[in-house]
Amino acid sequence: MSSTALDPDIATQLKRDAAGLVPAVIQQHDTGEVLMVGWMDDEALHRTLTTGRVTFWSRSRAEYWRKGDTSGHVQHVKSVALDCDGDTLLVRVDQVGPACHTGAHNCFVTDLGAVSA
Amino acid sequence: MSSTALDPDIATQLKRDAAGLVPAVIQQHDTGEVLMVGWMDDEALHRTLTTGRVTFWSRSRAEYWRKGDTSGHVQHVKSVALDCDGDTLLVRVDQVGPACHTGAHNCFVTDLGAVSA
Repeated sequence: MSSTALDPDIATQLKRDAAGLVPAVIQQHDTGEVLMVGWMDDEALHRTLTTGRVTFWSRSRAEYWRKGDTSGHVQHVKSVALDCDGDTLLVRVDQVGPACHTGAHNCFVTDLGAVSA
Repeated sequence: MSSTALDPDIATQLKRDAAGLVPAVIQQHDTGEVLMVGWMDDEALHRTLTTGRVTFWSRSRAEYWRKGDTSGHVQHVKSVALDCDGDTLLVRVDQVGPACHTGAHNCFVTDLGAVSA
């Protein structure tokens, strides 16, 4: 992970995990559908906030990953919010095509059969 | 974290972090509002799947935390889904009162001023 131009006022509010990352929940802005969760370091958050395109840090590939560059399934940023603890992001987007690499529209593909209250 | 009765078929699908946890996105089932993100180990997931009440593992207090036991702001489980990577849960709930300890209805209280696409 490289140096970053992330706004220092934002950087001081972030509570990162041991790897320097925070989870980012990606939500379709108009329907409310939760599409996926990715991970961001300071630089990925900076790029997401300033370019209009969602950018993650890939833990498996150890590289920045701008969603859609390979698949075409771009996420256009509508808003980004930090939670009360400073350790989770909510990114509202306009998703082009499916969000999941499986071809499903969102990544939450396995129902675990919870007992409903 | 104690031993657990989590269904072995589910346990084998989970990809936990170094602390044995997965993030759980909590979403209001009817409005789609993303309320918060908490963390679950196998036992917290087992309790969430079988009791109808959302239960987390508190990283800061190192104990199980059944949402609402202190605040009254209970989360009744509607469904639980695992994502394609097996490393994130989406829990759809019926939230009683505000989800956030600040009194806000959800925890994503700080808008970071993203450039919108």
